[in-house]
Amino acid sequence: MSAPRTDLRTAALALGDDALVLSHRLAEWTGHAPALEEEVALANIALDLLGQARVLLSLAGGGERTEDELAYLREEREFTNVQLVEQPNGDFAHTIARQLYFSVWQELLYERLADGSGAPDGLGALAAKAVKETAYHRDHAEHWTLRLGDGTELSRARMRRALDTLWRYTGELFQPVPGLTVDRDALRAQWTRRVTAVLERAGLAPPEGPQSLPWAAGAGRQGVHTEPFGRMLAEMQHLHRSHPGASW
Amino acid sequence: MSAPRTDLRTAALALGDDALVLSHRLAEWTGHAPALEEEVALANIALDLLGQARVLLSLAGGGERTEDELAYLREEREFTNVQLVEQPNGDFAHTIARQLYFSVWQELLYERLADGSGAPDGLGALAAKAVKETAYHRDHAEHWTLRLGDGTELSRARMRRALDTLWRYTGELFQPVPGLTVDRDALRAQWTRRVTAVLERAGLAPPEGPQSLPWAAGAGRQGVHTEPFGRMLAEMQHLHRSHPGASW
Repeated sequence: MSAPRTDLRTAALALGDDALVLSHRLAEWTGHAPALEEEVALANIALDLLGQARVLLSLAGGGERTEDELAYLREEREFTNVQLVEQPNGDFAHTIARQLYFSVWQELLYERLADGSGAPDGLGALAAKAVKETAYHRDHAEHWTLRLGDGTELSRARMRRALDTLWRYTGELFQPVPGLTVDRDALRAQWTRRVTAVLERAGLAPPEGPQSLPWAAGAGRQGVHTEPFGRMLAEMQHLHRSHPGASW
Repeated sequence: MSAPRTDLRTAALALGDDALVLSHRLAEWTGHAPALEEEVALANIALDLLGQARVLLSLAGGGERTEDELAYLREEREFTNVQLVEQPNGDFAHTIARQLYFSVWQELLYERLADGSGAPDGLGALAAKAVKETAYHRDHAEHWTLRLGDGTELSRARMRRALDTLWRYTGELFQPVPGLTVDRDALRAQWTRRVTAVLERAGLAPPEGPQSLPWAAGAGRQGVHTEPFGRMLAEMQHLHRSHPGASW
């Protein structure tokens, strides 16, 4: 029993950290979005991801650590999210490119986990619920990729730059995660086809070049993070840490 | 036809600005809440209010101005929200006190508008939907008022201070709004009974003293705002204004 339980917790922590960190990045848009409709959309996606994160972190805690302890009291090196989700929002195109890369991957992964194959017990139910949410997130990102790619010269250039800049963080999505026994090569092939199809419809050529930095392949899952992550974490954890044990 | 249409738009703008401004204040908590559960609750309340604001601002625009034009392109003096909702978040107790005062009022008002009396056409349907949301917001604020009032000596002192500080902004809730013909004296009496009942259950005496500043009675509805509002507005409008007409 011990090995699969450890695997479940490791997998839940990795996926939970992905959801938590991306949720916080998206929440940074609230109050600053370019339009009210978009404010609502981004806030809804952030809330979906936060809900997923709470379930996943509870699984990861295994009754020994609470979701709040995991979210607020770990050090940077203990977070196992992919580096893609910690990248700063940048301009709106940047946020959309990050969302496209991530949500296509998340939907494909959760589809596999939802049917019970490849996931330890406990992850399947979460994935079955979350896959409907991720389909909406992916749809939103696709819609905006098409709109920006097919928009003004400026919006097209920004989308182009955002896709290129974030491309180097996409390889990590296909690194092994203990507890997840999905066929990673098949996942990668399907992800590449879907992303390429969206970009072609948007009139944008798929980025070229390596999908990971030489030093960084899979590093996020091992707790190695990029420089902006520390600042985000400090902000996220500040209030909880400044009132340890406070009974709000 | 002209007078009621003008009244509808004036009333919708006042209630829409209340919802928009409070939504943005609550959204400032996202990424900084003391616990994940509270992060979700505050974000949900902010989203409800933003949804209400969009409907109300569309009504206020009357087909001549869009919700985005009203949200992002008006000057401070054109906003007709009550000053209560623009008050900064302060500590968590402060946010809760603001929410208690406002949501008890909003629920009572929307109950009246939902039955069609006192509201011009167009507001009744919004109120009928929104009243269920406001009941949850009020419930959340009551829960926390009891918990903080009945908690540690520190949490109790903070709640006490927050209730006292914001008390002077509550009188404005009962100022007349063109288009809303509800019985304001009855509304005020009911609001006072409900708030007092919650505070007594929390072991907190109701605040004393005037419910408005001498210079400020009803001033928010006339476009006079307190100093922190300008900063919040600048932040909220910055991105939209810096890309006028951008087709994101």
